[in-house]
Amino acid sequence: MSEAPFQKVALIGLGLIASSMFWAMKRAGMDSHVTGFARSEATRDTARRLGLCDQVCDSAEEAVKDADLVVLAVPVGAMGPVMQTIAPHLKPGCVVSEVGSVKRTVIEAVTPHLPEGVHFVPTHPMAGTEHSGPDAGFASLFDNRWCLIVPEDHTDGDAVSRVETYWTALGANTERMDAEHHDMVCAVVSHIPHLIAYTMVGVADDLGRISDNEVIKFSAAGFRDFTRIAASDPTMWRDVFLTNKDATIEILGRFTEELMALQRAIRTGDGEQLHAYFTRTRAIRRGILEAGQDTDAPDFGRAKVDR
Amino acid sequence: MSEAPFQKVALIGLGLIASSMFWAMKRAGMDSHVTGFARSEATRDTARRLGLCDQVCDSAEEAVKDADLVVLAVPVGAMGPVMQTIAPHLKPGCVVSEVGSVKRTVIEAVTPHLPEGVHFVPTHPMAGTEHSGPDAGFASLFDNRWCLIVPEDHTDGDAVSRVETYWTALGANTERMDAEHHDMVCAVVSHIPHLIAYTMVGVADDLGRISDNEVIKFSAAGFRDFTRIAASDPTMWRDVFLTNKDATIEILGRFTEELMALQRAIRTGDGEQLHAYFTRTRAIRRGILEAGQDTDAPDFGRAKVDR
Repeated sequence: MSEAPFQKVALIGLGLIASSMFWAMKRAGMDSHVTGFARSEATRDTARRLGLCDQVCDSAEEAVKDADLVVLAVPVGAMGPVMQTIAPHLKPGCVVSEVGSVKRTVIEAVTPHLPEGVHFVPTHPMAGTEHSGPDAGFASLFDNRWCLIVPEDHTDGDAVSRVETYWTALGANTERMDAEHHDMVCAVVSHIPHLIAYTMVGVADDLGRISDNEVIKFSAAGFRDFTRIAASDPTMWRDVFLTNKDATIEILGRFTEELMALQRAIRTGDGEQLHAYFTRTRAIRRGILEAGQDTDAPDFGRAKVDR
Repeated sequence: MSEAPFQKVALIGLGLIASSMFWAMKRAGMDSHVTGFARSEATRDTARRLGLCDQVCDSAEEAVKDADLVVLAVPVGAMGPVMQTIAPHLKPGCVVSEVGSVKRTVIEAVTPHLPEGVHFVPTHPMAGTEHSGPDAGFASLFDNRWCLIVPEDHTDGDAVSRVETYWTALGANTERMDAEHHDMVCAVVSHIPHLIAYTMVGVADDLGRISDNEVIKFSAAGFRDFTRIAASDPTMWRDVFLTNKDATIEILGRFTEELMALQRAIRTGDGEQLHAYFTRTRAIRRGILEAGQDTDAPDFGRAKVDR
């Protein structure tokens, strides 16, 4: 067992991220005592059955009692209300963190409820799968992934450092970023790709002339990469778009503009423009491979599936 | 060795698909003699070095001499010109096939050059990776994937059956489809997803406020699935869009329409509409997993990469 940066940790919300955090803490040999709470009784039952958390509590108030670190791992829209509920029960010096995909709105929702002497350190582990729920977590989810740390100028430096130490122990690399920049970066690398994937899958589902069966059978030609993203948790993503509205709409505008330019090139038969555009994008892919953020295995990195 | 449906096979164009076909034929123990030709001398040299094809020829005319099956595996825009070149050198009864991603335009480009007594059976193996070139191929590329067979009403039935037998031996499942329906299905499951992925990567590359380095570092949040698709061969994809213009523009119109509806829901804060849309798309994902066209492994099916 290694000395943990926080002796008592409370996980509020027990989905993919929180359950992965628990298993990663255990893997790291942290000697923290971990309590957990989820709003749904079924989720709490599943957590107890899986041995997820040292203690699963029936209320958030109970879970955060005496905690040195409280992690809010609920949909972005629920962060404010949950903070309001737990605020009177936090011990002085406690660090409250959260793992939402949007920062400016969350900071605005949480900060008014923050008691004197409690520190707030927003984080965003940039890792996930299309699965959700307490049984979706696994210890290696954050390995070699980035966890963005998004303090404000006045945030206690020691609290920020301890949160960074904690995430490093969970396998992640950390980087500090301000909230506005975070929300714009995430709109580009995550939010808009998800929205586009959802839309493409919706279009395929709508087309009467092509059966669902055909869409499914022939998905290996590119479409399945979209369905994978578009299987992510609907509540989480609804909240992301509602709370990162400005950046989302700005990037969507850029996207639509470029898509229209390519559509025009297709309509007018401008092969040179298409070829130049399609060539430029390869360099980014190479960069991602070199940075170790994906594999170069053939067949889109996926194993053959026997039926 | 098993008796091959075609004794002498000529592969014209030695990229990902043709090289995978060669290795799959060898894996199947087919006793065919396989000749190959590529326009680029560098590609022919690589093929000779890899042992790709029993004989690499310096001209298409030489490669197709005495062939029972000629497979055109060149970009869609080159199918007509290549057919014109080889036509005088085909033996009577020969089956010409091709593996392009678009069918109506290819059929119109190839058919006028078809000699009397030579059969034309268009096919489309729905498998690929983002890699291209003679060294990108591997024997299992087509395993459990669909190969669409797109004959016309008047096409010789025996030629069609032999092509189906051939693809089944290479590991694929076959299904017949008419050219118009093929082009619409592929616009949905492949062409538009690729165009969208290219566009999204282009947008990220363009944004001055977000560095390439940031885009690359944080790509695991969804973006990397787009970059994978957007690393595909630019010449192949240019030709696909130029030759499947009608279906591409129709589906693009549908896509933009739905995207605008979601953008409006984001702008007006209509959470119910977003949630309902994001819920609907999960069913399609489940269908794809049940059909064995993807894996359900976490972390988007990709192995951890150590740096």
